[in-house]
Amino acid sequence: MTKTIGILTSGGDCAGLNAVIRAVVHRAAHYGWTVLGIRDGTMGLLDRPMRYETLDVTKVDGTVMRLGGTILGTTNKGNPFAFPMPDRSTKDRSDEIIEAVRELKLDAVIGIGGDGSFAILRRLATQGGFNLVGIPKTIDNDIGLTEVAVGFDTAVSVATEALDRLQPTAASHARVMVLEVMGRDAGHIALHAGIAGGADVILLPEIPYDLDVVAKKILDLRAGGRNSALIIVSEAVRTLEGKMVKVEHHGGARRYGGIGQYLGEAISQATGAETRVTVLGHVQRGSPPSAQDRLVATAFGVHAVDLVADGKFDRMVAWSNRRVVDVPIADAIARYQAVDLESDLVKTARALGICLGDR
Amino acid sequence: MTKTIGILTSGGDCAGLNAVIRAVVHRAAHYGWTVLGIRDGTMGLLDRPMRYETLDVTKVDGTVMRLGGTILGTTNKGNPFAFPMPDRSTKDRSDEIIEAVRELKLDAVIGIGGDGSFAILRRLATQGGFNLVGIPKTIDNDIGLTEVAVGFDTAVSVATEALDRLQPTAASHARVMVLEVMGRDAGHIALHAGIAGGADVILLPEIPYDLDVVAKKILDLRAGGRNSALIIVSEAVRTLEGKMVKVEHHGGARRYGGIGQYLGEAISQATGAETRVTVLGHVQRGSPPSAQDRLVATAFGVHAVDLVADGKFDRMVAWSNRRVVDVPIADAIARYQAVDLESDLVKTARALGICLGDR
Amino acid sequence: MTKTIGILTSGGDCAGLNAVIRAVVHRAAHYGWTVLGIRDGTMGLLDRPMRYETLDVTKVDGTVMRLGGTILGTTNKGNPFAFPMPDRSTKDRSDEIIEAVRELKLDAVIGIGGDGSFAILRRLATQGGFNLVGIPKTIDNDIGLTEVAVGFDTAVSVATEALDRLQPTAASHARVMVLEVMGRDAGHIALHAGIAGGADVILLPEIPYDLDVVAKKILDLRAGGRNSALIIVSEAVRTLEGKMVKVEHHGGARRYGGIGQYLGEAISQATGAETRVTVLGHVQRGSPPSAQDRLVATAFGVHAVDLVADGKFDRMVAWSNRRVVDVPIADAIARYQAVDLESDLVKTARALGICLGDR
Amino acid sequence: MTKTIGILTSGGDCAGLNAVIRAVVHRAAHYGWTVLGIRDGTMGLLDRPMRYETLDVTKVDGTVMRLGGTILGTTNKGNPFAFPMPDRSTKDRSDEIIEAVRELKLDAVIGIGGDGSFAILRRLATQGGFNLVGIPKTIDNDIGLTEVAVGFDTAVSVATEALDRLQPTAASHARVMVLEVMGRDAGHIALHAGIAGGADVILLPEIPYDLDVVAKKILDLRAGGRNSALIIVSEAVRTLEGKMVKVEHHGGARRYGGIGQYLGEAISQATGAETRVTVLGHVQRGSPPSAQDRLVATAFGVHAVDLVADGKFDRMVAWSNRRVVDVPIADAIARYQAVDLESDLVKTARALGICLGDR
Repeated sequence: MTKTIGILTSGGDCAGLNAVIRAVVHRAAHYGWTVLGIRDGTMGLLDRPMRYETLDVTKVDGTVMRLGGTILGTTNKGNPFAFPMPDRSTKDRSDEIIEAVRELKLDAVIGIGGDGSFAILRRLATQGGFNLVGIPKTIDNDIGLTEVAVGFDTAVSVATEALDRLQPTAASHARVMVLEVMGRDAGHIALHAGIAGGADVILLPEIPYDLDVVAKKILDLRAGGRNSALIIVSEAVRTLEGKMVKVEHHGGARRYGGIGQYLGEAISQATGAETRVTVLGHVQRGSPPSAQDRLVATAFGVHAVDLVADGKFDRMVAWSNRRVVDVPIADAIARYQAVDLESDLVKTARALGICLGDR
Repeated sequence: MTKTIGILTSGGDCAGLNAVIRAVVHRAAHYGWTVLGIRDGTMGLLDRPMRYETLDVTKVDGTVMRLGGTILGTTNKGNPFAFPMPDRSTKDRSDEIIEAVRELKLDAVIGIGGDGSFAILRRLATQGGFNLVGIPKTIDNDIGLTEVAVGFDTAVSVATEALDRLQPTAASHARVMVLEVMGRDAGHIALHAGIAGGADVILLPEIPYDLDVVAKKILDLRAGGRNSALIIVSEAVRTLEGKMVKVEHHGGARRYGGIGQYLGEAISQATGAETRVTVLGHVQRGSPPSAQDRLVATAFGVHAVDLVADGKFDRMVAWSNRRVVDVPIADAIARYQAVDLESDLVKTARALGICLGDR
Repeated sequence: MTKTIGILTSGGDCAGLNAVIRAVVHRAAHYGWTVLGIRDGTMGLLDRPMRYETLDVTKVDGTVMRLGGTILGTTNKGNPFAFPMPDRSTKDRSDEIIEAVRELKLDAVIGIGGDGSFAILRRLATQGGFNLVGIPKTIDNDIGLTEVAVGFDTAVSVATEALDRLQPTAASHARVMVLEVMGRDAGHIALHAGIAGGADVILLPEIPYDLDVVAKKILDLRAGGRNSALIIVSEAVRTLEGKMVKVEHHGGARRYGGIGQYLGEAISQATGAETRVTVLGHVQRGSPPSAQDRLVATAFGVHAVDLVADGKFDRMVAWSNRRVVDVPIADAIARYQAVDLESDLVKTARALGICLGDR
Repeated sequence: MTKTIGILTSGGDCAGLNAVIRAVVHRAAHYGWTVLGIRDGTMGLLDRPMRYETLDVTKVDGTVMRLGGTILGTTNKGNPFAFPMPDRSTKDRSDEIIEAVRELKLDAVIGIGGDGSFAILRRLATQGGFNLVGIPKTIDNDIGLTEVAVGFDTAVSVATEALDRLQPTAASHARVMVLEVMGRDAGHIALHAGIAGGADVILLPEIPYDLDVVAKKILDLRAGGRNSALIIVSEAVRTLEGKMVKVEHHGGARRYGGIGQYLGEAISQATGAETRVTVLGHVQRGSPPSAQDRLVATAFGVHAVDLVADGKFDRMVAWSNRRVVDVPIADAIARYQAVDLESDLVKTARALGICLGDR
């Protein structure tokens, strides 16, 4: 029996979304199903006329899987349960989306998102009685029950490359280079890129840091004959008192002067070192997807369509021990995945003498 | 108690070797041990005077971990049990190496190699009564009991990038592009890069292929409106009759005209398509290591030194389910790791309609 | 007065073609003109129905300028003056193209091609009385009267990157690595990439080479303590007797075993060195365009449209002393641009002691 | 007659410095001369004991030319004519450097630097009566009388790549992405990368900008159906009133919240667009040198040594119309090279409808 699947990308963009979309379309074509690509997350279902297009194999051939971003568009605004209205009030517009799903006669919706998007989509699916399959994507890799999410490997690669590019300047000028990377409340990018990129200091939100410990590391390196250092820091870190320090946002524009900037100045004062700060920003998101991200994205896309074929819904595809599996979306949302302080990567960092900011 | 460790790289070079060496040196420095870097695999122990250098942290700092190749040099010639002599005879020179290990008072030897190197090193260690720890490296990823070996991820990335670069020409000229990649008797590179790079046909030694099936795939694509295709093929493949077809080597020089060339011509004849062949060659080996390869390399290097500290020998470090573990070297050698035809990657390829050459 | 311009890409593809197309469309939009993108070189005008599409700004926005290949398709088959017929005879089909240009009411045709394409297009324009502007593209950089053609800088970058990737393996294994690059009868890619990539030997068609001289260079390096070397060789070179040695082509498929393979074996025999050969192939063409290629492509596209606005035809845009100029197409075709043996690059190569194969 | 040359790198590091050093050493080896590599600019001549090392061919072989930074170290502190003392006073220490040059019996000093470094070196040479040759390097490309300086092409490539990475996020999220690039008081990087990277707005210090004009461009794009835009802005720009607005520096650390941040917020307010800001920072300096930068660096290094051989001093090597020439250092310093508003690149930008901020 032929089916019609809706697919949408939701939340912050990342590398590999287009590879997921391509895989879904190719796998659905195998079943002879129709795929409707919904524009701009759930916004395409809120607007009237609705905004979507039929995706066939020829539309996603060739370069699409190799490109960053999402050909469908995405948004991280517009929670339909509390939609921002012009008068700054919010309105529950969930019924409009449910109505749209019915009108399009979608046998299933495949949502590519993070935990925030999944929470909203799942509430919509439950309320509207439609079938949902989730595919995890986030550069932050903080979604539970899956080892990796689409976009993480590329973000790590870009952050590592940044350290590779900062190292020569650090060494040539005898400077301390501070690199601030993304990751929201999780330190996965900083930890992975920090080890891969040869950082001397890695600061994560999972490990409250002591500025004195960081300063001592810089001074120890100097005593050992090295006047330069590489520091990688998550955009959110935690002080010894347990306070989370984050980058501020003002209006639509990201405000610089976050933790990276603070660290650069504080270390300069504490050690006399010349410091330079780089805030890597959105180049971590939009880069072309790595081979690994495209592999995961492709396997996820195929498995998501197979779940629809098997009538298994309310599940998220996941990567576990080199296999593609699926788990209840609710469980994935419930298990926030912070950096495991007992993991081999953390142990490796400590074993190498990398400073993690704690005593 | 302070120790002296010897470290050597053996067999074909690959990306990430220097990251392993750096991690070993840093971890050994933590214990206060001396690391002797032995030149050119076991050749540095065969020559008199012996060729080695003391490696301290400053020697492996900075750019070293980011570079392809191996700062120690390597060789895939000169099996000491059957050393090639000028008169074309062979001679057992194993005692000379064992003597060298004793003379250098090495408490342990860390060998970075593939299964061939491990077999030789293990025989040497057994015969000479010295302590051995192995670290797996190979772009072919064919070493048993470890999910990944150092160098594999980079090779996959380079091969995927090649498909990315061939796709525009394929589409612009309506051509069939054939990409021959490395992998020896295993199809891991071709399978991973083929999926990640959007190949239409992936030929592996593990799946005997039928030229008619490949030709039919090209004709089917054409019937569907696409006049171009991407084919990725391992340097060794197997015909339907089970015969392994490999690239030939003549003297020191690699002979082109292997399977890629054959396929290009055969497909051209069978389908009338214009074909072009690229033999990717050694750029798969010498590229700068990917972030993932550097992570694995670093974790492996640390764990190998810790095995020495724990007095656990005759073991190979390994990657399993996102942890660094160790296994008996003998077991790793005994378990050749071909592509698992029941793996999710093979299933993903089939599910997408990628032609694997079988019926 | 509004105009309709036809644009086509002809001959071998290269990086930057899409950036040219985008610039032409944007500049034409400024004038309020219509741009028709003709498919597959002149084939789109030979087929009936004709194959073309209207290109507006939205179609060439975003990723297009960043992609290799050509969104219009191209061909290096099908000279309309001697069109290959099924019975292997040829037929003059030039009138059909001229008729197509009239039918589409093209005020001008902008042809992006090399000297071969320009010769054909110019003959068509003369015979058919239509207006032609040429934009030079070729990875070979052999078009006269312009310092650079679109695609050259990217090809040089890719070839240089290949040397960067081969160097670690050369050094690690004490090998001589031979890299065969494209360039047709001109050595521009080999010369530029050879200097930029630190080659020890650069062989060009413009300088007949002596194998003994090359072998002596390898032996001299060895005598100086270096057992590895990098050799870059154009796909066509000339022997001392003046004979041009080229890669052979058989049917549609490129035959390996050309000059690179020959050199690898010959050097191995002459010096005893272990050699490895890489034939870089089509990755030189399809890679994403470099910043420099996109700059040149954009300036060329704008200037070509401005020539149409000024009523200046039968001219090719060109790069000269950091300015965009235009020259008669006929003059550009007449001046084949080989490597100038008196150029500063050749002198630089000699001054560094790079072996160019001559005595 | 054999000579001894001193070589030093001075001022901010950039890509290609090591390629210059390698070329100088190789060319000097041809003459049989000794090259002393002086550490950390003139600091290596100020400290006692002096810090320098003899550079021979083997030391600069292999990977060196491919690496960012400078193996000699550099500094942009410590003007010897006004050397900062611990008590915050300054002291003229020029005699110490002159004494060092004499003590080392340097027949010539080759200084790789920008105009600031050249001014100091020239004053030293004049005062001390030693021979000086200059090689221009700067990512800003603001040195007069040479078309390009070492490091510029790489910086443009990195900035262009950043736009390539921001574009997918811009399009996926319907955002305006602001990229702040380096360039000091010149807009060369922004102009080149802006055109190559498909920016909609390019702001340079040479063209005073009007925020209303920029906002109108964003609104015009939106009216034309595109809700995203790419803006590239130099770290220093000029307001309509002619006031230069620069990034501030505090202590050793660079303060974010410069022009990029300001623009992001101002555009968000003026247009309602969601904006995101990326400050590219030091990754523009330390990246591996592009092929083009290595070509220029190599040609410059050779020519500088040849100037010493010819006894031509007080001259800077330069790139002009595809040749390596030399000019009086004094003239080069005197001619600051801003973006030429009549250049073909500026015209190309305007012709494409790129907003340059003026009315």
